[in-house]
Amino acid sequence: MGRRRSAPNFDAREHLLDVAIALFAERGIANTTVAQIANASGVTSAMVHYWFQTREKLLDAVVDERLAPAFGEIWAPVDADHDKPLALTQGIVQRMFDVTGKMPWLPSLWLREIINEGGLLRERAFRYIPVQKIAAFAQNIARGRASGELNAELEPLLVFNSVLALVMLPQATAKIWQRVNPGTSFDRATLERHVTGLLMNGMSGSAAPVAPTRRTRRKTS
Amino acid sequence: MGRRRSAPNFDAREHLLDVAIALFAERGIANTTVAQIANASGVTSAMVHYWFQTREKLLDAVVDERLAPAFGEIWAPVDADHDKPLALTQGIVQRMFDVTGKMPWLPSLWLREIINEGGLLRERAFRYIPVQKIAAFAQNIARGRASGELNAELEPLLVFNSVLALVMLPQATAKIWQRVNPGTSFDRATLERHVTGLLMNGMSGSAAPVAPTRRTRRKTS
Repeated sequence: MGRRRSAPNFDAREHLLDVAIALFAERGIANTTVAQIANASGVTSAMVHYWFQTREKLLDAVVDERLAPAFGEIWAPVDADHDKPLALTQGIVQRMFDVTGKMPWLPSLWLREIINEGGLLRERAFRYIPVQKIAAFAQNIARGRASGELNAELEPLLVFNSVLALVMLPQATAKIWQRVNPGTSFDRATLERHVTGLLMNGMSGSAAPVAPTRRTRRKTS
Repeated sequence: MGRRRSAPNFDAREHLLDVAIALFAERGIANTTVAQIANASGVTSAMVHYWFQTREKLLDAVVDERLAPAFGEIWAPVDADHDKPLALTQGIVQRMFDVTGKMPWLPSLWLREIINEGGLLRERAFRYIPVQKIAAFAQNIARGRASGELNAELEPLLVFNSVLALVMLPQATAKIWQRVNPGTSFDRATLERHVTGLLMNGMSGSAAPVAPTRRTRRKTS
């Protein structure tokens, strides 16, 4: 229960946090004890308390030190006042895949502890959701729809939800999906090509110009 | 704890099942007691035991009597050997919206208790997943892709996952989404138009013929 935070070995703390997150994503926060985290890290429970004091502070660290930077990495480069809607969307999708590539535990943790009612990271994570940027993104989509660049049937406020669903859900549910269809390959490249192709094609309107970047194809003749 | 199943008032049992499902969807199965179900139904706990004997049998009833028919309603009309891929997909989407319209608790229960790791209906629900039909659907998509009717970047085995994500996730997470963006309207018509427009446009290939049905638009010239 020590309070010495300016302590010697910072890597030990990072390692504990990584192990805790992996366990939280795999079995849920409510089903993970400090003893299990200590055990999986090869340290004593006292050591977990030394670094994180309380369970609540451990959850704060998960969100402040892992989730918040991930949200930032995805949203910081967004310039919804200037970017073109398709390129903007494609950038978000690509960074979501980059982030989940580096943090393979993210989709499960997102499903279980953030979007799930009663998820134990929900309120903490909520503070870091870039509400303003998400609103500006929707406005960007609305302008693209008005100009004919985007599919007129899109609902601007729902586009980011669709992006999130398409990128995160298959990664969060890969295990059950492989049971349904043992042939399903969830390698990231295949999933990214599928999602990007579906979104870029699906969002394009009749007045869409040529494909914004390499990963896009367009069917407009 | 009675066993008299050929009992007088069948509606009482249906009503209890409906109330139990609503509570399960709202707060999770693990967080719902028999006493709460009884209380919300205006009966005694003994009555819940009379109709369902055990908690396990109550969960069996949720799956056998509510989820299985929902799966059937969505998949039974699918004729993956003969239907065109876009019309086939659109039919699935439309029936998913019909079913979630009648069973507004379904998206939350699906998220929380089926696809979530450790979901308490997962194994029970798994038996009713129409694995063969889902495989035949993927083959249908693969043929459509090969003929140029569909977007070449689609991964056939991932299409149903994408459909499920687009239709179910926004409905399962409507509450949190409205907090992120208070202007978001989740009325079913808007969501259905958005999802159908995105999918039909997104799945179409360069050789796609005219829109299969009313709700579709195509940008191919």
